[in-house]
Amino acid sequence: MSAGEIDAEERHRERMQRKKDLVDRKIARATIERGVVVVNTGNGKGKSSSGFGMLARSLGHGFRCGVVQFIKGSFSTGEEAFFRRFEGDGLDYHVMGEGFTWETQDKSRDIEKAQAAWRVAAAMLADPAYDFVLLDELNIALVKDYIQLQQVTDALAARPPNQHVVITGRGAPDGLVEVADTVTEMRVVKHAFKAGIKAQKGIEL
Amino acid sequence: MSAGEIDAEERHRERMQRKKDLVDRKIARATIERGVVVVNTGNGKGKSSSGFGMLARSLGHGFRCGVVQFIKGSFSTGEEAFFRRFEGDGLDYHVMGEGFTWETQDKSRDIEKAQAAWRVAAAMLADPAYDFVLLDELNIALVKDYIQLQQVTDALAARPPNQHVVITGRGAPDGLVEVADTVTEMRVVKHAFKAGIKAQKGIEL
Repeated sequence: MSAGEIDAEERHRERMQRKKDLVDRKIARATIERGVVVVNTGNGKGKSSSGFGMLARSLGHGFRCGVVQFIKGSFSTGEEAFFRRFEGDGLDYHVMGEGFTWETQDKSRDIEKAQAAWRVAAAMLADPAYDFVLLDELNIALVKDYIQLQQVTDALAARPPNQHVVITGRGAPDGLVEVADTVTEMRVVKHAFKAGIKAQKGIEL
Repeated sequence: MSAGEIDAEERHRERMQRKKDLVDRKIARATIERGVVVVNTGNGKGKSSSGFGMLARSLGHGFRCGVVQFIKGSFSTGEEAFFRRFEGDGLDYHVMGEGFTWETQDKSRDIEKAQAAWRVAAAMLADPAYDFVLLDELNIALVKDYIQLQQVTDALAARPPNQHVVITGRGAPDGLVEVADTVTEMRVVKHAFKAGIKAQKGIEL
């Protein structure tokens, strides 16, 4: 290396050392250890898949995990096939919904199914044995008023202090965003579907 | 049920039937079957975890999968522990980076590591045996010019037509967004870290 290159490397090292000090100080300020409520919402891709990624992380740590899928539809084949393997090995996996409302076309039945799913979810939120609970597409049932928001926020508030909960679905109600710790809006920049590409196995399915 | 309730049910059924027809027509128009390039970017949570969720879906379909993590840092413990179990069983998992630049503070070494990671990734993108390839945090290396964008877009263009590729990381360059099929910006609505909560196992770790 030339003297100039060595100088540049040294300046890089110093700049990165300052950045490291800054990041380290920020990390040192975050000292609270407790279960968090994560909400993934918005119209973009990645709400459920991110929930399933966190499920994988949680299983990787040996956590006891629970999943309730509030909408089955045709959009859960890959993850269900995959995660079902871990049932009885740290995971309870419930697919409770039957499909989107325009698929079933039967509102009373949809409400019944949503409330049955909520009863399973509420039991998990009340049980300190669960370290991680994923409530996939719960927001859809909240938006339609099939489940009362107050029931959900009460159950979240009363849950075991170290339990993590991930809630997904479009249109997260403001009252849920308010009580959540981390909320992400998945925003569409572009989507293959609009270009005529079918939902793909491994990506959407 | 009263007559009014029966009427309301019927109106719901008709509305949902119209919605179903609309959705069915949209789905019918999306006829193309091919591998897609998915990019998860933005400052919010869920970019990598969504990639790992799609990895789970892909493994659920029996796909041959490859993962290259361009940044190791301390942020990959849970997913690595979990997915390592599938090595040799449909999955090749490579953790190539050493950490964020402010952790290593050695630019030449960071560039070497990024390029070594890219060579592994490029070999996967050239190999029709891989159905699904996750390039986790590749965007970070692109933003820093440790890997040339042109190399990446060329490799994506030349890859097997049915191969899916998911690329994650903040600051996806415009040239990558342009060639991608589906791009999502994960936008922070709120984050637990800002409220003093440490990165949590199963959620971030």
